[in-house]
Amino acid sequence: MPKVTEEHKQARREQILAGAQRAFARHGYEGATVARLEEETGLSRGAIFNYYENKEALFVALVRRSSDRFVEIWLEQGFRALLEAVTNEDPEWLSVQVEAARRVRTDQRFREQIERLLEETEGRRQSRYDRLRSVARDDVPIEVVAQFLGMLANGVAFAGVTDDPMPDLDQLMTLIETGVGPR
Amino acid sequence: MPKVTEEHKQARREQILAGAQRAFARHGYEGATVARLEEETGLSRGAIFNYYENKEALFVALVRRSSDRFVEIWLEQGFRALLEAVTNEDPEWLSVQVEAARRVRTDQRFREQIERLLEETEGRRQSRYDRLRSVARDDVPIEVVAQFLGMLANGVAFAGVTDDPMPDLDQLMTLIETGVGPR
Repeated sequence: MPKVTEEHKQARREQILAGAQRAFARHGYEGATVARLEEETGLSRGAIFNYYENKEALFVALVRRSSDRFVEIWLEQGFRALLEAVTNEDPEWLSVQVEAARRVRTDQRFREQIERLLEETEGRRQSRYDRLRSVARDDVPIEVVAQFLGMLANGVAFAGVTDDPMPDLDQLMTLIETGVGPR
Repeated sequence: MPKVTEEHKQARREQILAGAQRAFARHGYEGATVARLEEETGLSRGAIFNYYENKEALFVALVRRSSDRFVEIWLEQGFRALLEAVTNEDPEWLSVQVEAARRVRTDQRFREQIERLLEETEGRRQSRYDRLRSVARDDVPIEVVAQFLGMLANGVAFAGVTDDPMPDLDQLMTLIETGVGPR
């Protein structure tokens, strides 16, 4: 039997994630059945669940991939670029993430996956706080500044989901920068 | 046949709304079947749909009732009181509203109900802007200030749904007031 290289595994994971994201975006969390996951990934359920233990794990891996990308944009290009990326994100994909938020409360298996993800990314959160500290006011705890910005990013995503008119990002940034900038 | 008084109708509507909100919060939007709506309201489907034309209309009436209450708190007690009311809202009820946001994009009947609601409340939005203008900075359009505040309120609601740690409201308000207050 030929040895499966790390490169091959990585390509396979990418194929699964891309197909699964299409399935979730198109059909919603519930509607993305195993049959539809097979269809969109072009792989059998055996192959898919060889890489991700269940549907919850697959979805959480996708949420993590999205969130990593947004954090990277934020760190490298600033918060305005992050908001712009959110407004340009596929609204179907945003909307299934919003829909699935309810599951954190109601679905034990989903909750465990999310908690594991939060533990894994704890170190990166701390380094984000450090970078934020260098540009933000110092009379409010940095955690609150980060929560404030996170809530605004979620608010922009939510407006995309409900098709609310999107605010002018420059003007929105004026309010945000006045709010969190050095005093 | 006895004449049905306006008072009786109003009480019946209230009974339907309270029961339906329990059904949606407990079972999710899809899970709130007509049978469960009957069970939680204590009324037959005939009685329920005599007052609300369909499930979409019933849900939108509930969203409107919630949103009216929050706007009232905002106008009478200020934005901090609004955020506090959001953090004290039943997380199950918040989470079904978040879950249902996806429907605005995907469900035509739902969308029509929401658009009708927005038209009906347009006048009140304008009067809210007028009041906001008297306490906010004037170098950014008041619509953007309102969107900024709405996004933050949604962000706080979303944190409640996903059980994220809630920020200290006084410190959050410091950032918000600096951001939107007069220059």
